[in-house]
Amino acid sequence: MDKHRTLEVKRDVMAANDAAADAFRAEERAKGEFFIDVMASPGAGKTTLLLALIEELRSRDADKVGVIEADLESDVDAMKIKEAGVDSVELNTRGVCHVEMGMVKSARSAFGDAVFDWMFLENIGNLVCPADFDTGAHCRIMLLSVPEGWDKVMKYPPMFAAVEALVVTKSDYLSLNPDFDMNRLHEQARILNPHLKVFVTSARTGDGIAEFAEWIRARRNEEMAIR
Amino acid sequence: MDKHRTLEVKRDVMAANDAAADAFRAEERAKGEFFIDVMASPGAGKTTLLLALIEELRSRDADKVGVIEADLESDVDAMKIKEAGVDSVELNTRGVCHVEMGMVKSARSAFGDAVFDWMFLENIGNLVCPADFDTGAHCRIMLLSVPEGWDKVMKYPPMFAAVEALVVTKSDYLSLNPDFDMNRLHEQARILNPHLKVFVTSARTGDGIAEFAEWIRARRNEEMAIR
Repeated sequence: MDKHRTLEVKRDVMAANDAAADAFRAEERAKGEFFIDVMASPGAGKTTLLLALIEELRSRDADKVGVIEADLESDVDAMKIKEAGVDSVELNTRGVCHVEMGMVKSARSAFGDAVFDWMFLENIGNLVCPADFDTGAHCRIMLLSVPEGWDKVMKYPPMFAAVEALVVTKSDYLSLNPDFDMNRLHEQARILNPHLKVFVTSARTGDGIAEFAEWIRARRNEEMAIR
Repeated sequence: MDKHRTLEVKRDVMAANDAAADAFRAEERAKGEFFIDVMASPGAGKTTLLLALIEELRSRDADKVGVIEADLESDVDAMKIKEAGVDSVELNTRGVCHVEMGMVKSARSAFGDAVFDWMFLENIGNLVCPADFDTGAHCRIMLLSVPEGWDKVMKYPPMFAAVEALVVTKSDYLSLNPDFDMNRLHEQARILNPHLKVFVTSARTGDGIAEFAEWIRARRNEEMAIR
């Protein structure tokens, strides 16, 4: 095996992905569509948080929302999103552990000419690989659920470094998790990523959702002001 | 980019990994060392289950136990294992999302000439990539924690197909998760993997640990009888 050749191929693939992502970001911005990449472990509550956030966004404005649901297989989450009356497209990666730019473009084109105020990508449930691939999003966020434990920054640093915001989910489990050290989580996350925003939420009780929606509205306005 | 060439390289790498895994499995068996690969999402409770299982295994026999702790970075879990008085070696993959055979061999050799009755690999917290790589284990198991939700079989099928046993962890959270459908989990898992053993456990209350230890002791005996 020719190692040098293999590394070159990888570098070329990543560079092509990054260039396509920059172009996609600019196109989406020009259309007025704000694109958010949502990443987390399996079962951290991505779909549930998205549904709560979308309800909050729509409660104030008549915003149009679309969701790209990425999964290895199946359409379990896309069905949940559709049942909530939100436009969604299922993106099956057929076993691939992350989403790349070409997949995003295909999924986005499946919505046709419709233009949305908000487009969400629910990435593959994986706290490792998605961090490495630019998906053309204007904003990347990650979720960490309370039952997963607070000590994940040092174990999965690329993800914590790749995002603008950390949304702690399932805060209603804190009573069952007296060891969950929110202060040390903040501390470690901000050593790695000093500008990281941290939100503590529960989609079940609604705690923290309005505050998170407020921040993401501001981020959208900021992004749209670049035009 | 030459696609054909890239595919060949991948096939060669996987074939070399499989051959090395078969050789390692045979060597370990000949030494009387039973090697178990433990896979799960981040925060599913791999380290905690391992500590409970090891305590149970040692409570009956004076078995020698070693643990290879795989992480992208850091040695948080290896420290927990060491504090419990169990021999462990930290395997940092430096960002790689899975463990390959070469890494296992290096980690195992770090224990020197010591021989163990049980050797555990705590794989990277990732429900996707580790499923694809043979680590030379005699037995592969996966954990799924109750807070992650029951609906993971159709979303992450390669992992459910790759293992002999599914250990449901954090069963003490069932009261907070009335939607966790244990029957449908069993049903879906066994459609994909008809011989899958399922255990329901809580390391916190001790529920199900003895039953799981009983099964894994029987698996060890079975494997050692091949010699």
